[in-house]
Amino acid sequence: MSKTNSGYFFEDYHVGQVLNHATPRTLTEGDVALYQALYGPRFAMQSSAPFASPGPVTLVPKLDDLIVFHTVFGKTVPDISLNAVANLGYAEGRFLEPVEVGDTIRSSSKVIGLKQNSNGKTGIVWVRTTGFVSGDVPVLDYVRWVMVRKRDAAAPAPDPHVPDLAKAVDPATLKVPDYVDWSNYDFAAAGEPHRWSDYAIGEIIDHVDGVTLTDPEHMMATRLWQNTAKVHFDVTARPDGNRLIYGGHIISMARALSFNGLANAQLIAGINAGAHANPAMAGDTIYAWSEVLDRAETPNANVGALRLRLVATKGKAGDLCGEDGKYLPEVLLDLDYWALIPR
Amino acid sequence: MSKTNSGYFFEDYHVGQVLNHATPRTLTEGDVALYQALYGPRFAMQSSAPFASPGPVTLVPKLDDLIVFHTVFGKTVPDISLNAVANLGYAEGRFLEPVEVGDTIRSSSKVIGLKQNSNGKTGIVWVRTTGFVSGDVPVLDYVRWVMVRKRDAAAPAPDPHVPDLAKAVDPATLKVPDYVDWSNYDFAAAGEPHRWSDYAIGEIIDHVDGVTLTDPEHMMATRLWQNTAKVHFDVTARPDGNRLIYGGHIISMARALSFNGLANAQLIAGINAGAHANPAMAGDTIYAWSEVLDRAETPNANVGALRLRLVATKGKAGDLCGEDGKYLPEVLLDLDYWALIPR
Amino acid sequence: MSKTNSGYFFEDYHVGQVLNHATPRTLTEGDVALYQALYGPRFAMQSSAPFASPGPVTLVPKLDDLIVFHTVFGKTVPDISLNAVANLGYAEGRFLEPVEVGDTIRSSSKVIGLKQNSNGKTGIVWVRTTGFVSGDVPVLDYVRWVMVRKRDAAAPAPDPHVPDLAKAVDPATLKVPDYVDWSNYDFAAAGEPHRWSDYAIGEIIDHVDGVTLTDPEHMMATRLWQNTAKVHFDVTARPDGNRLIYGGHIISMARALSFNGLANAQLIAGINAGAHANPAMAGDTIYAWSEVLDRAETPNANVGALRLRLVATKGKAGDLCGEDGKYLPEVLLDLDYWALIPR
Repeated sequence: MSKTNSGYFFEDYHVGQVLNHATPRTLTEGDVALYQALYGPRFAMQSSAPFASPGPVTLVPKLDDLIVFHTVFGKTVPDISLNAVANLGYAEGRFLEPVEVGDTIRSSSKVIGLKQNSNGKTGIVWVRTTGFVSGDVPVLDYVRWVMVRKRDAAAPAPDPHVPDLAKAVDPATLKVPDYVDWSNYDFAAAGEPHRWSDYAIGEIIDHVDGVTLTDPEHMMATRLWQNTAKVHFDVTARPDGNRLIYGGHIISMARALSFNGLANAQLIAGINAGAHANPAMAGDTIYAWSEVLDRAETPNANVGALRLRLVATKGKAGDLCGEDGKYLPEVLLDLDYWALIPR
Repeated sequence: MSKTNSGYFFEDYHVGQVLNHATPRTLTEGDVALYQALYGPRFAMQSSAPFASPGPVTLVPKLDDLIVFHTVFGKTVPDISLNAVANLGYAEGRFLEPVEVGDTIRSSSKVIGLKQNSNGKTGIVWVRTTGFVSGDVPVLDYVRWVMVRKRDAAAPAPDPHVPDLAKAVDPATLKVPDYVDWSNYDFAAAGEPHRWSDYAIGEIIDHVDGVTLTDPEHMMATRLWQNTAKVHFDVTARPDGNRLIYGGHIISMARALSFNGLANAQLIAGINAGAHANPAMAGDTIYAWSEVLDRAETPNANVGALRLRLVATKGKAGDLCGEDGKYLPEVLLDLDYWALIPR
Repeated sequence: MSKTNSGYFFEDYHVGQVLNHATPRTLTEGDVALYQALYGPRFAMQSSAPFASPGPVTLVPKLDDLIVFHTVFGKTVPDISLNAVANLGYAEGRFLEPVEVGDTIRSSSKVIGLKQNSNGKTGIVWVRTTGFVSGDVPVLDYVRWVMVRKRDAAAPAPDPHVPDLAKAVDPATLKVPDYVDWSNYDFAAAGEPHRWSDYAIGEIIDHVDGVTLTDPEHMMATRLWQNTAKVHFDVTARPDGNRLIYGGHIISMARALSFNGLANAQLIAGINAGAHANPAMAGDTIYAWSEVLDRAETPNANVGALRLRLVATKGKAGDLCGEDGKYLPEVLLDLDYWALIPR
């Protein structure tokens, strides 16, 4: 019997199956600093402890929401995507409770859909993944679907079950973290004067700056989240001899770039949809732009929500899709999310 | 109206103008560890908490003075040097109060000089930048001048105003941090036996070791300080396709190399002058040497000050300037600073 | 007189000599996070604070045993291996007391053997190195021997003195850290179901995954341990223009890879022997496999010890040695150690 994990194949999943993923992980100030070094975010809520908690003195900066996302996601890789061909989409993502330095994250996934592809060699698996702290306090919940290889093409196809997913998270269900007190928000310290009401639906914001990607950086990031997918680390895993960059690396880089024009979009509250449109490799120079898709109020009178499309491209591409309606080859990421911003 | 920051141009500055820079930043143990990983310093005051604070037990190492410098400096980039052509010099730098892990730094600059260049396309801006903790406690103060592009060459030139700057910080004004207790200094633990009185004015110290620079390392360092100048990150920003390395990266690398021969020059108290003589790129192998320029006593009987010229070069260059009095092309850095060392 | 350290040469050592190495170093959560980013370990005892200390709440993850090893080792470099030609072996390594975040490590070595080589230009130096915390609490003890250049080939040879070293650490002398409580060990959270009794002597475990090495990563790791050997940093130090990767980087990478199949081999208790069989360089893709060499009980009824041979190779090599009994050129590491695992 082999003691090593060869991952799940398509026929190993069934609807309703629960997978408790291994290796809980305690997040520390070290993770915060590495996130800073790898992406260079400047959002004041995560950069400055007093900005985040203006009342009593605290010495600990807040964790970027994407640190939580990547940590929860990374744990799912050995059970969900080790034999995946493609990461197809995200939906119904919500950040539920704040995660603090010192918290320990574990994650768990439930299979909510299965559909074999017509080629008989692969199938699509939908899972709802939840991250927890303190053992059982849910902090993040999202649906992801991936295309997974079959171990044996002759294995029978399961009854197809495609879950009914919301096209976007209902803004009425977004959580504003308890620690958010924007009653006396310092726009000068935050870096830009624009508040919720300054953003119009349909508005496009070019985030201007570009970053050329490198292998050591994305590998360090990916290891930080204990994501073990071999295509990120081993140049022999792909025919082209390149390491494929973890899609979450592009999300974090694009989000950090988006500070320039969205400096006050401090927190991510929900993930409506997301596509890693094309693979990214070291040497690619990425740029980002955002489109304001929607606006919503929240129960907190000082906090508004913006629904944003965040697009990362190689080179300064303008369009998202070609005439055929497919993503252009220079598009790396198309992420639809809800951000919280002072009203 | 664009929501993104395109930076200030020469004609946007006026003498007396105060710029409060965005995004305060809380420094943590994670920053200390990254500084260690990026530069490999061995100065005992920052490496060992008990060495730094021999009295009551403390578990937190001290922050390298250059962490403070880079953090204060990085905040100024969006307002001072986004459209800068060159970083021309430093003067009158003094470290005023110690910065501890957990402190939050903000920085502010005052325009103290302006002079348009004869080409009419650029001008020189002098600023005095101050870093603060706890809101308003100054921790570092220095003058920097940069050459900045004009947005519109036809804009009128301001009245020239060149500030009168000290050639060196008066050693009588240097601050010895309160936590320094060198009454029972352990030279063996610190790594070398040489004290203040062992260094002679005019003495040259070759720091022997070399380091070949890489792109991921300088980008991680530069992001850590939230320095956003695009030439450091985007290979398309320069005609030669190279990323320009942040000058502060060279300062920190040279300072770390200088341990070999200056192991007891534990703290930086003042910055007299500095020039980034030539650009540094990944692949360059840098070496460093120091010259003792001056010596001074301090009010603390156990603490002396050495005025040091720290020179970083590509390859093992000997000379600093050619016959024309200009820096040789292999010279990267010429930094004139005051260090504190046991007397 | 030169103020810089040119290191010890063979004739500078004598049996019984004690070298107290410079620069104590306080370890922090930042070091834990960097270790995570550089190697991607998933062992639950170091990943999760509650897993490591299931009783009272603690927010601080445990330090990987190899962080302790590298920190103790790094301090010895300026005094032991600055003029070394080769790092020949390890023996009698034992981890004695746990090291916690916040502890400050210093290290000291005693010369226990000397033997000049027949070429008259080099000799072998055996040292017993001990790492301490809190000034004088030993935490790690091991023997290492290196081949060191003579400064002057004409210097007389010392009387040869070859220490008598154990072929393996007696398992009865292994220390189980006090904080280990595996009475209610969570195998699902740890990632694999295999306990001590599931491993058979002679069993081989292929750890499957590979990692392609890069220069920035090994340099950052090596600086973290304040290891200053110039071949790791300066491309001009070797005729081939490559940086030689610190052997400990390969140990840590192979150990992290070994999670896949040895997820419950949580702690390293002893180092029996080790050889850096061939040099590793950036661009090499390394894989690892383990062989179970022995099994032993410990005084803790829930804790067993496995003696493991951990082999790292370039490419997916199978064999360790050729017909001549020498390591094959693709073998990078052959490490013989004792791991602790739930019984």
